[in-house]
Parts: sequence; structure tokens; C-alpha cells
Amino acid sequence: MARDYGNEKGDGGEFQSPALERLVKSLSRLPGLGRKSATRLALHLVGPAEAAAAAEELVSAVTEARDQVTNCSSCGAITEADPCRICCSERRDPSQICIVASPIDILPFEKAGFFRGRYFVLGGLLSPLDGVRAEDLPFDRLTCRLDADGVTEVIMALDASVEGETTALYLQRLFSDRELRLTRLATGIPVGGALAYIDEVTLQRAFQFRRSF
Amino acid sequence: MARDYGNEKGDGGEFQSPALERLVKSLSRLPGLGRKSATRLALHLVGPAEAAAAAEELVSAVTEARDQVTNCSSCGAITEADPCRICCSERRDPSQICIVASPIDILPFEKAGFFRGRYFVLGGLLSPLDGVRAEDLPFDRLTCRLDADGVTEVIMALDASVEGETTALYLQRLFSDRELRLTRLATGIPVGGALAYIDEVTLQRAFQFRRSF
Repeated sequence: MARDYGNEKGDGGEFQSPALERLVKSLSRLPGLGRKSATRLALHLVGPAEAAAAAEELVSAVTEARDQVTNCSSCGAITEADPCRICCSERRDPSQICIVASPIDILPFEKAGFFRGRYFVLGGLLSPLDGVRAEDLPFDRLTCRLDADGVTEVIMALDASVEGETTALYLQRLFSDRELRLTRLATGIPVGGALAYIDEVTLQRAFQFRRSF
Repeated sequence: MARDYGNEKGDGGEFQSPALERLVKSLSRLPGLGRKSATRLALHLVGPAEAAAAAEELVSAVTEARDQVTNCSSCGAITEADPCRICCSERRDPSQICIVASPIDILPFEKAGFFRGRYFVLGGLLSPLDGVRAEDLPFDRLTCRLDADGVTEVIMALDASVEGETTALYLQRLFSDRELRLTRLATGIPVGGALAYIDEVTLQRAFQFRRSF
């Protein structure tokens, strides 16, 4: 039917512009963007007036970020100077290390501002199903760091997921012969969370780890 | 409290990298992206390995799209050749014009492939609240097009919103002294839509415009 009326699709993708289709595809390959959001973004970026500035700014920001951004060779945090400011700061206690899965997990800690130790970014979690094994994560570097900095407490701030549990268990075994306080974040009801809407697993954990009042 | 432990925030934004913060800001200014999605995208784009290719492809795609993409001077559709293929195609009936608000609204028609006429993109809808007045939309160009192409039917494919209704009423008045069939898309229950979940306004419209069986 489409052929009868010469409706335009196929060779140029859905839009009558291969360049726009390429941009949509390029955007929709990014995490969290489907075809619809990508189309919306692409149309915005090729739009008139202010969009030119937005597109130029995006191109320049991506290029600059790729040039400047690196990971701290000590903790793995995102930084432009290596080692990062947290690892360099003398006000941060080197004997306390908080282990996180991703550099992004450092942000809520720094935002809250109560943590006085340093970090170690694993860059992932153990996941046999996804093929992430112990040799894929920087456990060697972590062990060296413990020795070098005289670490006395390791706080595991990992997701409360299967992968998080697996990694926590692995770390527990790895450090079992060390004089080390190994802790992990508490599981329970979030502050301000409405009990009625808490999922069952969280509720069960909160009950299991109930404290004396 | 943050100051005591030298927690890092403020000067470099939340990340310890002004370049990454700039990328996050640049992304979060795009429509539909909040700070969280923008952060996720930015981290992906500065990430290792395949991300380099993704970032380069994005930069190149944005640049190419801005260079290549234009709007058809006749109908306003997104195109690389001007006039666009639909306006050039001899198989499309010039006497039937479908008025849409945005170039993206052409896609579902072309995908379905039943429409044999041509399009006219308004580039917006009348909205006194947002300051979009009649002189901001290309009604002059539309009127010229009707005369030049001998248009006999105008189909208004506009959103079923207040702005859509306002624009439809304006078009009705604008064309009141012409020999023209002015139609608009039917409002009603979507095909396959479950009656139980239809909103009240749609249901009322579907009842109001009920057909003899």
C-alpha cells in the first residue's frame, strides 16, 4: 500500500534525512534512551536558533570531557587530576576505606558530607551470569592499598542485589585472615519511607536487623 | 560538616571534574533529560573502550545532522533535499493537505502508508498562554499553498489538546470563505483500547461522535 502512494520510508529511515536517522540511532544506542527519546533529542539538536548553540555545546562538551576526564589511579574516582583530591587530601582518614561499585556511588557520600575516609571503586560487581569474575575486578590493587595505607576499616557500600551480596561475600573471604573491621551499609526502611509501600524483601531485612529500642 | 572532612564539592560541581560537570549540564539541558539521566549518559560517554567510539559517533552525528538537515520550504518536513521527496513526488495528490503541528507528526502517517496527499507543518500550535500567536505561525504560507496547489481538502491532524482545538478553530475561521472541505481526525476509543482504562474525556467524545451501526 505504501508503494502505491509513494510514501517515503525505507532508504532514508523514517525521516527523509539519513543524517537525522544517523543521529537518532547514535543517541538511541546510549543507555536509557529509546527510539522515542532519541528522536525528541535529535529533533531538538537540529532545530532552529538556540538549538545550534545546544548542539555545539554538546559536541564541545563531549570532546572536552573525553580529553580531560580520567580515573584516579589510587581509588578509581572520576577526576581530572591524578591522584584525585580525596586521595590527596590530608584531612581524609586513609585508614578507613569505603568500597563502591561505580564512581557515581561516591557522589551521595560526598554530598552528605559525613564520611571522613577515602574510597575504592571496584568498577563493577561480581556476576557469574554476566561473566564478571574476580580476576576482572581490581582486588589486587585493593589489597595493596590496604597494606600501603594501614587500613583498619573497610566499609562495603554495595548495592543490595545478588551481585552486591556475592561481591561482599568474596571480600569477606579475601580479608578473612586480616586484622580488619569489615562492615557494610545497613539494610532497612529508608528515612521518611512509608511502611505501606515498602517492598517485602526490604521489610523482611528491616525486621531481621531490628535494633533494641 | 563537609568542610571538616574536606569533602569535595562546590568548585568542581559534584564530580571532581569540571569537564564532566559541563557535559552533564550540557546533556541535562536537552528535553526529557534530568540530572540523573544526564549523569548516566555522561559517565557512559567518558567511559572506557567502546565508549570512545560512542562519543566520537555522537559528536560526528550531531555535526553532520546540523549540516545536512533542513526543512522543506514547501511543507516544512525534515529533509536533506529541498523541496522534500513527498512534495516532489508526482504520486502524491497535491489537492489534499494534511496539517500537522511538528515534522515528527508526519512519521506515523508515512509509516501507516494510507495517506496519498501532502503535508503542511505549522511548527507549533496557537497558545495564548505560551505567547504563540497567529503571526508566529506560517498561516500566510499555508494560504499561498492552498491557492497554488488548488487544494480541495485540508485535514487537520492536530493534538486533541486546548492548543490543538484553538488552532483548529482559527483555521476554520481563516478558511470560512473558501470552497474547501475542512476535516479533522476522529476522536474516540483507540483500536484495541480497553474500554475500562479509557479516560473520561475520550469516552465522552467517543459517545458524542458515536456512529450508526
